[in-house]
Amino acid sequence: MSRITVQAASLAQDLTGLVPGGRVLTDTESLLRYSHDDAEWAPYETPLAVVLASATEEVANVVRYAAQRGLHVVPRGAGTGLSGGANSVANCIVLSLELMTAILEIDTDERLAVAQAGVINDVLRQAVGRVGLWYPPDPASSAISTIGGNAATNAGGICCVKYGVTRDYVLGMTVVLADGEIVHLGHRTAKGVTGYDLTGLMVGSEGTLGIITEVTVKLLPLSGREEKGIIGYFPSLRAAGDAVAAVSAAGVVPAALELIDHTCLRAVDEWLGLGLPGDVEVLLLAKIDEPGTTGADLADRLAGIFTDSGGTNIEQATDPEEIDRLFLARRMAYPALERLGPVLTEDVCVPRSAVPEMLSRIQSSAVKHNVVIANIAHAGDGNLHPLIIAPVGALAAVARAKTAFDEIVDDCRELGGTVTGEHGVGLLKLPGAAEELEQRVISLHGSIKSALDPLGTLNPGKAFPQQTQP
Amino acid sequence: MSRITVQAASLAQDLTGLVPGGRVLTDTESLLRYSHDDAEWAPYETPLAVVLASATEEVANVVRYAAQRGLHVVPRGAGTGLSGGANSVANCIVLSLELMTAILEIDTDERLAVAQAGVINDVLRQAVGRVGLWYPPDPASSAISTIGGNAATNAGGICCVKYGVTRDYVLGMTVVLADGEIVHLGHRTAKGVTGYDLTGLMVGSEGTLGIITEVTVKLLPLSGREEKGIIGYFPSLRAAGDAVAAVSAAGVVPAALELIDHTCLRAVDEWLGLGLPGDVEVLLLAKIDEPGTTGADLADRLAGIFTDSGGTNIEQATDPEEIDRLFLARRMAYPALERLGPVLTEDVCVPRSAVPEMLSRIQSSAVKHNVVIANIAHAGDGNLHPLIIAPVGALAAVARAKTAFDEIVDDCRELGGTVTGEHGVGLLKLPGAAEELEQRVISLHGSIKSALDPLGTLNPGKAFPQQTQP
Repeated sequence: MSRITVQAASLAQDLTGLVPGGRVLTDTESLLRYSHDDAEWAPYETPLAVVLASATEEVANVVRYAAQRGLHVVPRGAGTGLSGGANSVANCIVLSLELMTAILEIDTDERLAVAQAGVINDVLRQAVGRVGLWYPPDPASSAISTIGGNAATNAGGICCVKYGVTRDYVLGMTVVLADGEIVHLGHRTAKGVTGYDLTGLMVGSEGTLGIITEVTVKLLPLSGREEKGIIGYFPSLRAAGDAVAAVSAAGVVPAALELIDHTCLRAVDEWLGLGLPGDVEVLLLAKIDEPGTTGADLADRLAGIFTDSGGTNIEQATDPEEIDRLFLARRMAYPALERLGPVLTEDVCVPRSAVPEMLSRIQSSAVKHNVVIANIAHAGDGNLHPLIIAPVGALAAVARAKTAFDEIVDDCRELGGTVTGEHGVGLLKLPGAAEELEQRVISLHGSIKSALDPLGTLNPGKAFPQQTQP
Repeated sequence: MSRITVQAASLAQDLTGLVPGGRVLTDTESLLRYSHDDAEWAPYETPLAVVLASATEEVANVVRYAAQRGLHVVPRGAGTGLSGGANSVANCIVLSLELMTAILEIDTDERLAVAQAGVINDVLRQAVGRVGLWYPPDPASSAISTIGGNAATNAGGICCVKYGVTRDYVLGMTVVLADGEIVHLGHRTAKGVTGYDLTGLMVGSEGTLGIITEVTVKLLPLSGREEKGIIGYFPSLRAAGDAVAAVSAAGVVPAALELIDHTCLRAVDEWLGLGLPGDVEVLLLAKIDEPGTTGADLADRLAGIFTDSGGTNIEQATDPEEIDRLFLARRMAYPALERLGPVLTEDVCVPRSAVPEMLSRIQSSAVKHNVVIANIAHAGDGNLHPLIIAPVGALAAVARAKTAFDEIVDDCRELGGTVTGEHGVGLLKLPGAAEELEQRVISLHGSIKSALDPLGTLNPGKAFPQQTQP
């Protein structure tokens, strides 16, 4: 505690007065813990203080206070982001919404729910499930990430190939603007076009335009779905990629189509002992959720495409526990790999037809730069997560990993892809975003940011690159 | 032609030089024809000139020219809008994109199409249908409205109850900004979160932030759907509303759930002689499109709910021609009513559970103000289109119609609804939008408009109300 200056002590005192229901943290350990999200190698600073807000009004108080004093505010959900979007910047207060965990309303007639930003994705899904409703967006982090963070980053997930991303489910929100004023955006009706789609603008803006404190989400009926799992082993990434492209070309839209390679499977199995196949190079996991004979026919078609693309050991699982076990391996792949060393996570998304070529190029980059690249992918979306693993402290290996990272981004762009399919730009994807976006489009971002946050209070330097001078 | 001043002649000459492939119209008849869209009673001015652009570069040339001279540009698709969004303003050039009718690309692997803004919705649907793909958004105007106009207004339609609105299908676009610069927004991949969702911001912004000249849309596979129609007669609007609310509460999501009342049915039948039932007070038309036994079960459930809600003559149609005939009546209801007199079209959208109450209140307003109100509705979305018909030249009746219009908006707001579900704010819904949006949200609109169009070149005064001084 001795490192806290008088100024910091005064800040802490001020903040404590502003967040009567919340908590203000200034101890060294907390400042470090809240200084970054789960992105490796994205830069971060030590925050001046951490505030755990418990109400929208408290968020507003802190933002107003910061704006008046020229401080920055970095909003944070669960800190599970993979692009550094929640990383602390100089002269900032980290504002965590993790204590705002109330599900305020579930309306079964209108099929919507209203949740505070800190509600965990899985908790919301379970709560609405108990009344026969379904919240589809399911990032792999669903057990630990918050609905506010999901909205701020427009999180994707496993079922997005059929059911879309977070943005497709956000009807409205409560937002604290850059000067601390509270606004309500969007609507509760099935449709609504009154004014600009400011709700959609906030979704994915990574806390740079406003801080989302409550979210109104659209729900689907839980009934009418019957999940079937289809798995297949493939001898190479390229062969698995061919299968993915063939599924898309056949017009089959599965409810999930995930890829896991040997490295990931082994890492998960060594950690969790799930009894996963040890002799398989690449595994494709698909779900079909149409009921009855329709679903059975689609599952057979998918299995046939797997076979035609060189897949072996094709199996169909109808037992929900078996399906869950296989998809658990997919969900746990990232933390399992993190145990092996710092993981640099790509999030490139290419046209589905380019998946085989992109997977080939990733493999070439790994060989060329002598780095370990494990692969998990929302393959059905073309959204690939090559995970570049570097041994701790091995500087040369880290440099090689960074080179491979940049090369993969370049390859993705060459194949008509985008540098981030679902993780967001944060800090880590700023260089890629600068390549992808036209200069004038970058300046549009700057204009909108200036219009909504003229002082640059909210999460400065994130979400879009600075415009380079012509 | 004698009315053209020297200044106007010089303008026409300038414009002709800027749009080598397009057309410049300045004759009185054309100026009148292009001075407004299909909204009754929304104000309009005579434009200085009309330009029919044939390429993005021509649009850019005209916008740059107008911006440099302090003129306004009002973009226009087919002019089928129902809120006055395309109405001419003072000192403006009307810029029609109706000649930009090329479908530039259909990618069957990635399931997307790229179309110029002037492509008619149905033409796009037919073109992608020929290669086994489906573009769902289907405004009732689909035979005459353009994809650019659909995107600019975030058009809804009949299948939106299950398949969403235009915004859910727009992946990217080419846009001419307020200074004439051309930008490309969005992505071609299934997912993508690089930067703010500027594509989504442009969708529904009614040409006030940029002029959409090309649209990249997501498509679905055409296969796997089997349409069944379910119809039922209801003794009152309230009873039909009860059926709609019951369908929603039962968790059934039909592919269409439309309401047509006696007045509309009679108007269509008198015009087109479709042999529609003449003795029915309210007709509900639903579609189920799940295939096989799943679809049959859902259709039976829906029919059962109709019966339980007081419906009679419940029939299921599986003959596509019979289904089309019934839905043609729905699509033709608006033009059929227009033949009876000027039609003031509401577009209120209420929570689905409030549909019975809202329909009751509409009926009360009609009686109370002694006006004819016909009803068509995307009932399954809660999106109602009470059509207020006033005899030509009857000033007192017009005044009564306007009073009824305002009362319906107030009732909708009281029931938690929004003033425009799919038609957009344009000019006609500005007062309602001023009630619906918080003052600070209105000022956010103004900030974004100023940031992207500082001179107010593009379609000024539309899409959002001016902020009132506190």
